[in-house]
Amino acid sequence: MTLRAPVDRRTFSEVSTVTPAGPGRVVAEVDPEWTIGGKPNGGYLLAVMGRAAVSVAAADHDHVVAASAHYLSSPEPGPVEVDAEVLRAGRSASQVQARMHQHGRERVAALFTVSHLASGGAPHWADGLPEPSEVAFDDAVKLDPQLPDRRRVAIMDQVEVRLDPSSAAVLRGSPSGRGELRGWLRLPGDEPFDPISLLYAVDAFPPATFDIEFAGWVPTFELTVYVRALPGPGPVRILQRAHLIDGQRVDESCWVWDGTGRPVAQGTQLAGVRLG
Amino acid sequence: MTLRAPVDRRTFSEVSTVTPAGPGRVVAEVDPEWTIGGKPNGGYLLAVMGRAAVSVAAADHDHVVAASAHYLSSPEPGPVEVDAEVLRAGRSASQVQARMHQHGRERVAALFTVSHLASGGAPHWADGLPEPSEVAFDDAVKLDPQLPDRRRVAIMDQVEVRLDPSSAAVLRGSPSGRGELRGWLRLPGDEPFDPISLLYAVDAFPPATFDIEFAGWVPTFELTVYVRALPGPGPVRILQRAHLIDGQRVDESCWVWDGTGRPVAQGTQLAGVRLG
Repeated sequence: MTLRAPVDRRTFSEVSTVTPAGPGRVVAEVDPEWTIGGKPNGGYLLAVMGRAAVSVAAADHDHVVAASAHYLSSPEPGPVEVDAEVLRAGRSASQVQARMHQHGRERVAALFTVSHLASGGAPHWADGLPEPSEVAFDDAVKLDPQLPDRRRVAIMDQVEVRLDPSSAAVLRGSPSGRGELRGWLRLPGDEPFDPISLLYAVDAFPPATFDIEFAGWVPTFELTVYVRALPGPGPVRILQRAHLIDGQRVDESCWVWDGTGRPVAQGTQLAGVRLG
Repeated sequence: MTLRAPVDRRTFSEVSTVTPAGPGRVVAEVDPEWTIGGKPNGGYLLAVMGRAAVSVAAADHDHVVAASAHYLSSPEPGPVEVDAEVLRAGRSASQVQARMHQHGRERVAALFTVSHLASGGAPHWADGLPEPSEVAFDDAVKLDPQLPDRRRVAIMDQVEVRLDPSSAAVLRGSPSGRGELRGWLRLPGDEPFDPISLLYAVDAFPPATFDIEFAGWVPTFELTVYVRALPGPGPVRILQRAHLIDGQRVDESCWVWDGTGRPVAQGTQLAGVRLG
């Protein structure tokens, strides 16, 4: 009989905490469990930097509305420093630059536009969005931390990714060829999402390329996120879609809806992929 | 009889020229004709910054492959300075930060990943892309520099934007409601596109929101571009699509194919829109 050690599970707020460490500088602790093959998830790192960006902006510019990151060299789990600089403090929005360092090397560079998202309201026009999944959270299939190649993905023991039955063939190593994954994401302890954790949500799903051909590690080169509305409580619906694989690079879009069906965030990324 | 003065038309290479002005600094001249209501086009500014980024990177990192810009305050036509700093010089790619200033104020902040795009090849997988227009360049309808609200858009006298007949109802003030514009873009003098001018191409079309509801100026807050392949000569096909209008912000995707049908670039932007 094999006994599996209980998983140490901290909340997203805990693993993304930043602590002031001088003017425009914060420190954070990259959690060893929020990783894929020992490398921290890129959206998780962007969320940490987003907290740093909001901390230096005006008090009423409390929500990231746009974030763009270029990934230089992956940090290891452990302490990192983030330097954040307000580039412009406007009336309705501020722009902030943030740079993450570890062991004296630059790891991630990012730009943020921070503003304030009002509660409530409704989209004026949403006809250009893809359709979210109709499958309920409980009917979606939980993603196992073990990949088809038997590697364990630590972060999948922290968050709960559930795939629609129509996407779940990927879990059995049978991609559909459409390059598309639909499902749900729940944070540890069902913590409610906010504009910071939405920066992680757009990079939380497995690569949509797994629905084309399984290809091991897919490192993110660039990630852009737009936060469009404040999410309601509970897990979020996600659609992750690949568009083009060329020159061993793939671009993917990600769409996020809250439990009420409100579109709350979207992301686009360019990543490396060992196909073609 | 009304005589219209001949339009002064410079090539894209000319209007985006950068001149070294010290370590990591270049100067450029923002052309008064590459503007919309007196404001320079955002993709054009990104292209100028892209030239600055490539100029400081290693010689074999000669192509921008990913660029992300946040727009702080629009520069006026005239001289601007761009400071470019290599954040990391890697083996296969470098990351560069660039900041555009004018009259002592920061105007645009951008991050670039520069690498080398090999000639030839073909996409490994492209099934996730939307379909480009099938209409030939000569059968598409030339966009008039005069908007439905009678304002003249100076840049449309410089470049040639042609819309598919199916998109062209927008030119008569009759949007389809789909939020989608398809057509072609040709540079002055039919100058061949390259990875720098593709940074402009993804922001060259009118806002796709014009196909929903005409809404005056649509200022870009954030623009991200991925350059995927070296384009062949001649004009490029473009598809510009809006997805969601919420809180007076809209996101748009842009897809660019060269004359042979090869997908060469894609962009995503968040912009302000006075709707909703």
